[in-house]
Parts: sequence; C-alpha cells; structure tokens
Amino acid sequence: MTKALRIAVAGLGTVGGGTLRLLDRNAEAIAARSGRALQVTAVCARERGRDRGLDLSGYQWFDDPVALAEQADADVVVELIGGSEGPAKASVEAALAAGRSVVTANKALLAHHGTALAGRAEAAGCTIGYEAAVAGGIPIIKGLREGLAGNRISRVYGILNGTCNYILSQMSAAGVAGGNPRERLDFDTVLAEAQRLGYAEADPSFDIDGVDSAHKLAILTALAFGCEVDFDSVYVEGIRNVSALDVAYAEELGYCIKLLGVAQLVNGAVEQRVHPCMVRKSQPIASVEGVFNAVVADGDFVDTTMYEGRGAGAGPTASAVVADLIDIARGTTPPVFGIAAGKLRQLPTLPMERHSCAYYLRLLVLDKPGVIADISAVLRDADISMESMLQRGRAEGEGEPVPVIIMTHETSEAAMQGALAKIAELEATLEPPRLIRIVDF
Amino acid sequence: MTKALRIAVAGLGTVGGGTLRLLDRNAEAIAARSGRALQVTAVCARERGRDRGLDLSGYQWFDDPVALAEQADADVVVELIGGSEGPAKASVEAALAAGRSVVTANKALLAHHGTALAGRAEAAGCTIGYEAAVAGGIPIIKGLREGLAGNRISRVYGILNGTCNYILSQMSAAGVAGGNPRERLDFDTVLAEAQRLGYAEADPSFDIDGVDSAHKLAILTALAFGCEVDFDSVYVEGIRNVSALDVAYAEELGYCIKLLGVAQLVNGAVEQRVHPCMVRKSQPIASVEGVFNAVVADGDFVDTTMYEGRGAGAGPTASAVVADLIDIARGTTPPVFGIAAGKLRQLPTLPMERHSCAYYLRLLVLDKPGVIADISAVLRDADISMESMLQRGRAEGEGEPVPVIIMTHETSEAAMQGALAKIAELEATLEPPRLIRIVDF
Repeated sequence: MTKALRIAVAGLGTVGGGTLRLLDRNAEAIAARSGRALQVTAVCARERGRDRGLDLSGYQWFDDPVALAEQADADVVVELIGGSEGPAKASVEAALAAGRSVVTANKALLAHHGTALAGRAEAAGCTIGYEAAVAGGIPIIKGLREGLAGNRISRVYGILNGTCNYILSQMSAAGVAGGNPRERLDFDTVLAEAQRLGYAEADPSFDIDGVDSAHKLAILTALAFGCEVDFDSVYVEGIRNVSALDVAYAEELGYCIKLLGVAQLVNGAVEQRVHPCMVRKSQPIASVEGVFNAVVADGDFVDTTMYEGRGAGAGPTASAVVADLIDIARGTTPPVFGIAAGKLRQLPTLPMERHSCAYYLRLLVLDKPGVIADISAVLRDADISMESMLQRGRAEGEGEPVPVIIMTHETSEAAMQGALAKIAELEATLEPPRLIRIVDF
Repeated sequence: MTKALRIAVAGLGTVGGGTLRLLDRNAEAIAARSGRALQVTAVCARERGRDRGLDLSGYQWFDDPVALAEQADADVVVELIGGSEGPAKASVEAALAAGRSVVTANKALLAHHGTALAGRAEAAGCTIGYEAAVAGGIPIIKGLREGLAGNRISRVYGILNGTCNYILSQMSAAGVAGGNPRERLDFDTVLAEAQRLGYAEADPSFDIDGVDSAHKLAILTALAFGCEVDFDSVYVEGIRNVSALDVAYAEELGYCIKLLGVAQLVNGAVEQRVHPCMVRKSQPIASVEGVFNAVVADGDFVDTTMYEGRGAGAGPTASAVVADLIDIARGTTPPVFGIAAGKLRQLPTLPMERHSCAYYLRLLVLDKPGVIADISAVLRDADISMESMLQRGRAEGEGEPVPVIIMTHETSEAAMQGALAKIAELEATLEPPRLIRIVDF
C-alpha cells in the first residue's frame, strides 16, 4: 500500500469536527477505497483549549492557518474557516503556493476568487476540491464535472439553501387546507423558530437574503457552462418579503414557493439569478422539503436529471470533504472547474431586466371604486397581459385595505418593474407591490 | 494537448448510434474537458449495410467484435452488444487481455461476471467503465463509488427499470380518483400500449419479470458494500401479478406501487431483492413517474440522498458511456468497484425467508359465511397480526367471488408464505393469494 495521504485541517467548527470524526470512524473503509490511509497530521483553530469532544493530542497544533498551510507535515490542506477573504483566502493561497492541494467547503471564497484560485492550483500541479461548498449531501460537483461531462448543459437550478427551504416549507406546512390564509405562520415567526432549532444563524441575512445561494450558484454556473466564476453578475433576492398570504395563494393556485438559484444559457449569454419562485406542485423539485437541497441539470443528451440530499450539517458536509480527499488519495482529480482554468470562457451575461417570465403580484390597496381599473390600465399600458386577478375577503367597509393578487402572462422584467413603479404611485396603493416570478420548468 | 483517445465501438444499435452522435456533436466541449480529443477509429456490428443514419466511412470496420477488441487501432473498446455471455463477454475479455480499457452498458455481463472482469482489468492495468449499465441518465456509479466514498452505505434502493415504472405509472394514472377501481387499465392493456410506444420490448420478460432490475441491483450492491457481485442471491419477482385492483387499493390507502430493487446490510449480511413494493405517497421516490429511474442511498454521514433521471434511451445512455470515456481520457479512473477487485468481500447473504416487513394481501374468495373467520384463523395461527381488512362491493349473491384486501403488521416472509399456502388451500379461495410488500423507508 502506498504511503498515507497526510492531511492538515484548518478550522475545527461543526464541519471540521465532523470531518475528523468521519476520517476516524470509517478509516478502514476509506483506506480500502483510497488504496492508502488518510491521516490527519495537523490542525488549527482559533481557540486551542475549547472542548470539542475530540482528542487532538495526536496532531500538530497551529494557531495560524497560514502557518499550518505552509509548514504542516501534510499533502493536503482542508480549509474550513469560511469567508471570502482574510485567513481562509490567505491559507488557501499559501497551501497552493507550497504545492499542496486544498479541500474546502468555502463557497464565498470560490464564488469570489474561484477562477484565480483554480489557475494557481493548476500552475502548482495540485488541485482544489470543493464538493462540500455546494449542497454537501449531494455530490453535484462530481455529477456536473464528471457524470454529465459528455453533455452541453443548458440549465442548472436548484434549492441551494436549507435554511430558506426550511422556512418556506414551514410557512407552507403550517397552513390548514381550506382554512383562513391569514392563519398561516408568517416569515418572522418561522425564522425565530428556525433560529431556536439551529437551522438559522443568529444573523441569518447571508441565508435569507439569498447570498449563500448565490455563492453556490456562481460555482455551479462555471462548472455547467465551462465559464469563469462570475458572482457579481448574479441577481440576488431573498425571502424576507414572502408573506403568509403569498404562501396561501400559491397553494390555492397549485404552486409552492421555493428560493431557487437558476443559471441558464440564453442565446449564448449567461443568466444567473436567485429569487423566490412559484413552482408547480407537480414538479419534482416542489416536493423537496425542509432542510433538504436539490439540484436539477438539463443536458442535451442526458435530458433532465435531479439530485437531492441534505445541504448542510456536520455529517453531509464531512462526507463531501472526505470524498474530495479520497479523490486526491486515489489521484483521480479532473480540472477544478472541469476544463483547464486558462480555458474557462468569458461569456456575455444576460442582465435581469431582460429576463422574461410570468409573474405573481400581490398588492395592498384601498377598497374603493376605480382602483382595479387603475391597476389594469397600468398593466395594459405596459403591454402586460393578466391571466387572473383575485380579490377576496372584501374589506369591512369602503376605503379599507384589501389584498389584490394578479397572475400575469409572460412579460419582461423591465416592463414589469416599470409597471410596478407606476402602481406604487397610485393613491390607493398602501405598500410596495410584491412580485414572485413563476418558473415554467 | 495530449494525443487523442482512440475508441473502438462494438455494437451500433440505439446506444451505439447515440454514442457516435454525441461524440461528434459535442466533440469540442468533450476535448476541452478531457484535455484531448476523443476519436472513434473502429466499429463493429452485425449488419454492415444497414442504414443507421450514420456516416461510418471514416472508421475501420470489423465483422467480429473479438477481432475489433484485439486488432482495432484503439485505446478503449466500447461494448454495446449486450448479453451476459457470447460475443459481448468474449470481446470484453479480449480487450482486457490486450490491455485495453472497456466501457460497457452491459448490466447482465457485469451482474454475472463483474468480480472476475474487474480482476482481469486490474491485472492488465486498465479499467472497465459501466456508468451506462445502471440508470443511464443518472451518474449513480460515480455517485456511490466516488461521491459517497467516505460513507458506510447501509442501504441502496431504487426504481431501476423504466419499462416497469412506465407500466405501473400508467396503471395508476388511468384511474379516476373516487371512481370505480375496476375501471383502471389492467396490466396487459398497459403493456401492449408500452410495446406500441417502444417503451417495452416485443419480448418484455427481462424487464417485467424483474431480471433487468436485478442485474442492476447486483452491481449497485457490490459498489455500495464493497463486496463481490452476487447476482444469484438476488430475490426476483416482477410486476405481472400487479392488478388494476391492487393499484386502486394502494391509492386509497395512501400508497403507490413501484418495482424497487433494494439492497441492504442486515447485521452484516447482504439482502438483495427486487419486487413490487407499496411505497407511501409522501416518499420522494413515489413521485418518480413514467420511464424515469431513481436511486436512493443511505450513508452513515451523508444521510439519505436521491438521484433521479432517465433510465434508458439513446441520449442518456450515450451520456453515461461518454462520461466513462472522458474519465479514461483524463486518467481519473478509480478501482472498478471502488476497492481493489481482490479485496471485494464475500459477505453472508440474508435469504428472502428471513426478510421481514408489513404486507398487503389480495384474496379472491367466495362470499359465504365463515370465510373471513377461516382466513383470520390462519393468520392468527401464524402469529400474523392484521392492521386492516377490506371487503367492499359485496358479490351479487351469496357464494359469488369477492376480493378481500388485508394489510398486516410486520411479520417474517417465512410466516407469511406459510400462511398464504394455507389460505390457498381453503375451499373458498378461488385464486392464488397475492402479496405486495410494504416498504417503511
């Protein structure tokens, strides 16, 4: 048997701890699969003394991740610090400069610096494994980069954030069919519950504002289309404005609301967007509930293929980290983004204004004569055709607030935003109009 | 760029044609991903003159696949002939003997000779790619062997045959909710329709009797548990006996009927079985419809993960063949079954008699006093506890046939088979009792 693959781990939080436990517990099976042992030799974390339920006595200790990356007795550096800059980036760069391969769960780092880091890895003759960076429990990096490598991918999309999917699932589950839509749990209540259960961070903005999904989407986009990672072009909108009313109406109309990341090629241009979507309940992805993630890819020969699993947590993320380590131990690592870093294409981007879809609109207006006529006129003037309009539960009396729900036929984002701005200016409009885009796949 | 990977293709049916088309149409993207061109140099088929809509003039022609495997100017031989013996086996063995890697879609060959062939490949320093042998549109071989390589897998199961899933989906779809269960389309009608549409073969027995699913399951079992391929231990039961009545009752009880292949480790022993299953509609796999396949794997760290896609057809299968070719071109091929062939374990097998689950039973009995008491007594004597019994639509008059549906609590297969033999002997029993196993995952 070849000599052991020596591993240095930077960051001993949930995922770091899970990785050490996995490498220990399944050591024998992993060695059989790798053809050699996987041996952790060094670790690094912020607080040395903290009790993590792990015996660290056998490992070389570093206080500084850059020192670990440069000096540890290791072939591979596992970066589990997080963040697109600072010590995470410095330690990854130091490891690559020292000719050491990197395995990371850091989506922010790759979303911002993926192309450059892949180039550095290639120049140094080593690699970066990042299966753990996107949907840990789903080997989607390998799926796109290797499993579907024969295909031209036209679209990849998915539920990329378990926190958001948990919140939206709970908002949906809490409703009673046929009951009063206003009895459903609202966003803030469910978020508080998710925080209590540990499914959402104390500061949840990275998740619920869609940034985390956008990081992951940018990585999938590069893999799927063979282009440079371009996080800055991702349109990002989170789930804060999704109301209990929206969830109830979606249900009634045969949809559910999911935060999707969608990347597609439109006439050779790349469209990347993260926003709440109305998804038909008959779609497989509609039944992906709770903290689960799912990714769908459409290829020219394979057709549609879907992958589902846990998106986060110590176990699934450690599983992904170790899969990358086994690849490195086996010596079976393809190019970081599927093709040589220098050959990743710079594709034109399709700005969000040019996106086109059908829309769900929710307005809150004063219940008085002429309001619906005014709204209809704005839409007509913008060439937006309505599929349906719903005004239920009339206000107690004239001049009281009442919600109006409109479904439109397909139109452009530019036309829709223009019309919404005009509707917002109507005297009877009481709050900014909300939209949710309807997906037709 | 490294020199081209030269490919010889044996078998130019649907998949062979699809593979040539894919290699041609996506040549540029494939070369970028492989770091070299993939070039077909030689082909072989039964009839040279047949019009396949392909230009074969640039390829060396062979009449004999063994000659192609031995003499073609090729690095890799793609075997798309099919069958566990004969020319398929001979050509694969010849290719390996000549030190050439093999890519194959042949599940029968691997189910029967997988361990031995993996050993030959390893001894010759080459490999066998077989992503196309199991659920072509789902990169599940790679998923298990690499993506989940850090896990100990406790169970893998799935819908492995698109023909059966199409038939069962149609039998289910044809029913009208709340309508007369007897109005649903029966098995023979749907099978005939599937044959007309090309979803079922003229001789459909390999598919509908579960043999094709069993071949695929045997391969997944070896991969999941790191054991030798053991097709002979797979319990196999097809879908011929699933009736329109069963589909209707399943629906009513909150289930659907799926032909599943299930492999699991039970106290260190391997259980492998293919049979119709009652699956709760809330399970993700229950919503996999039509010709789609799905595979679910449970790992100790990753938890549950599911993969869904097309199981067969020219495009998806060619996609899988080419993924393997790209792996070979990249030089990134792990051991055939995930660990060295010589280290694949011989695990004890759990015979079907020792399987234990809850059961759905359908009896056809004469409607006369005492029948239900007799049946109940047989079950009681076998220590089988009933969850529910349903006798609806009483016969026109006493002494007429009437169906009785029984759901039991968990019991052993041995107890159940014993009880069914006794029920079959009752005077009032008009046809062999049918059972469908209820899965609780």
